[in-house]
Amino acid sequence: MKTLRLFSAILLAVLACGITTAQQALRINTGIVSPEINPDKSVTFRYFNPAADAVVLSSDCLSADTPMTKDADGLWSYTTEPLKGELYSYNFVVDGQRVLDPSNVYMKRDIALWVNYFTLSAEPYDLGWYYEVHDTPHGNVSKVWYNSPTLGKDRHMTVYTPAGYEKGDKEYPVLYLLHGSGGDEDAWSDLGRAVQILDNLIAEGKAEPMICVMPNGVYYNQAAPGVAVNMFQPTTENSRSSSTKEVEESFPDIINYIESNYRVAPGRENRAVAGLSMGGRQSCALSMRYPDKFGYVGLFSGSVPPKEASEFAALDGVFANSPKLYWIGVGKDDGAKRNSDVLRAYLDEKGYPHEYYESEGGHIWRNWRDYLIRFSSQIFK
Amino acid sequence: MKTLRLFSAILLAVLACGITTAQQALRINTGIVSPEINPDKSVTFRYFNPAADAVVLSSDCLSADTPMTKDADGLWSYTTEPLKGELYSYNFVVDGQRVLDPSNVYMKRDIALWVNYFTLSAEPYDLGWYYEVHDTPHGNVSKVWYNSPTLGKDRHMTVYTPAGYEKGDKEYPVLYLLHGSGGDEDAWSDLGRAVQILDNLIAEGKAEPMICVMPNGVYYNQAAPGVAVNMFQPTTENSRSSSTKEVEESFPDIINYIESNYRVAPGRENRAVAGLSMGGRQSCALSMRYPDKFGYVGLFSGSVPPKEASEFAALDGVFANSPKLYWIGVGKDDGAKRNSDVLRAYLDEKGYPHEYYESEGGHIWRNWRDYLIRFSSQIFK
Repeated sequence: MKTLRLFSAILLAVLACGITTAQQALRINTGIVSPEINPDKSVTFRYFNPAADAVVLSSDCLSADTPMTKDADGLWSYTTEPLKGELYSYNFVVDGQRVLDPSNVYMKRDIALWVNYFTLSAEPYDLGWYYEVHDTPHGNVSKVWYNSPTLGKDRHMTVYTPAGYEKGDKEYPVLYLLHGSGGDEDAWSDLGRAVQILDNLIAEGKAEPMICVMPNGVYYNQAAPGVAVNMFQPTTENSRSSSTKEVEESFPDIINYIESNYRVAPGRENRAVAGLSMGGRQSCALSMRYPDKFGYVGLFSGSVPPKEASEFAALDGVFANSPKLYWIGVGKDDGAKRNSDVLRAYLDEKGYPHEYYESEGGHIWRNWRDYLIRFSSQIFK
Repeated sequence: MKTLRLFSAILLAVLACGITTAQQALRINTGIVSPEINPDKSVTFRYFNPAADAVVLSSDCLSADTPMTKDADGLWSYTTEPLKGELYSYNFVVDGQRVLDPSNVYMKRDIALWVNYFTLSAEPYDLGWYYEVHDTPHGNVSKVWYNSPTLGKDRHMTVYTPAGYEKGDKEYPVLYLLHGSGGDEDAWSDLGRAVQILDNLIAEGKAEPMICVMPNGVYYNQAAPGVAVNMFQPTTENSRSSSTKEVEESFPDIINYIESNYRVAPGRENRAVAGLSMGGRQSCALSMRYPDKFGYVGLFSGSVPPKEASEFAALDGVFANSPKLYWIGVGKDDGAKRNSDVLRAYLDEKGYPHEYYESEGGHIWRNWRDYLIRFSSQIFK
């Protein structure tokens, strides 16, 4: 077995790590294949650690954390049942400590936590297929700085332009796609695979070619870690709180930048706003504050049910402008479902047209990626 | 002490990791501050692991790997001497295994290896200062797909446009900046901090506003991990080999894309090529294959000393076009120095004007970032 033959090299590498600096050790590969996607779509995880007493696999591809098995060489492994197409996250827990898989370069950061990930597709057009990169035309992704006069500072955002944007003079509709608490302008493109989802939907003719704008929704941050002044450690503290107000008031600064720097089709029928969790609440609030701005609204695990007369009036104002789609998605086990239920009850009572999708599971990215596929397939048509 | 007060929370978090899935655990912060940059610019590293027998700090901020000290609560720590301004990389070695710092979201990937990093500036304009983000105008960064007719496929590259590019109709010079073996289009922008270096140099008036193009120099890859078809694990195997030829022949495809999609100032006096290691050899080869294309050439720890008559003639051809700057940088301890010495001996013998910078150290990114500052400050003037 390849991994066994490589152990002496691995041991040397591990020892080398102990006696050289990180810089000098940079080119070490572990020589271990992990994760390995098997022909039957089961997945084998491997981790070399002779000294460990217990290694647990923690992953959303399992119903519960699962102990891995150690062989005589100190290689820990575990093979799952055949899996459905998805993007799966995981880490190892080594004698009680979270450890990332040193054999897998695929990692993503959610707020302050890094996890490994892999995508798996069991058949075309399953969820995993939409998250993979296929040999089709690709859109470009820009990280741009815009000035917000309302907030009095420059802020950073991610802009996706569909394949072919550079050629010709076509004007495109725009989806404004908002992240959750503690997230940033990288969240939807990295964790959400929004770029691959849109590339694949557009290539298959299942979504209209569109620009997708992913701003930073934490108003007191300018940008994501590494691009911002100060090496801050992201947190969800505060970012939930009063950010919505600042996001609402300054949102026209984002729209103005996009519409003056990109070839944007005019009118609300070419403008959508959607977001997850905090971004869903922001999308709901934005639709009420600017009832004539957005022809399509998507609330993913986040909404703001009206409580006072002014809020009921604002929601009435949204539907007085008959949005082309008011889409609500939430998981059966999601704490955000309660708010969605209250909002939907009012919409039903008033007979305001809206679409509701209830998924399995809770307040997690695998749902939000699914919601993006469902929502973006229906807009601008 | 804050870290001590937080231990119960940390323990709960660690336990939670063991009994929940990675997705559900995503919002956990360790509550530990690591690394902490102290007022005297010493740095304290902290890692919580009661079960570990030995934890070593491996970092290029140390002359050698150093054991950390464990306190009664199971918190391992180490404080360095005051450090010079730099971007430093590190990881922990826990009972013989490389482990990333779970308290520090700042990580970067070099080929197949992830390490934590931090930047530190002891005074304005030290190296660390150039790698930090300052409150100055920022350029934008685009990840774009271009078609290479020569290679018969679409390929991915990173394009930096300086602050103000979107406004006005100014044409800009272009630096083509190439990575090393096993790298990709993310290497210079992520590991190399090229975006921050250029932002800071331009804001300080020390470099001309320029476009910087960072292509993928491994000809058989289309793009970096996560953006490419197939979840490949990067390696230096093969990428050294015959890639230069393919890179040379297809390089005009890159120039053509840039010059037809960006506002580029015409002529070789507005075109520079530089690269590190394999990218230095590619830059050297490109300067010889296209002697009238590049007004500025930078070889960072990589060069191709001529061996045959045709190669000597090609190099003579470069200097027959009197490049404005032919810059060679290499470290005292760098294995690539031998080739540089052979090349320089010929340039000296022929009286071909060139600039040589010999740094401390070896074949490492901290040198290449320094070389970029020195080279990009001298071009297009």
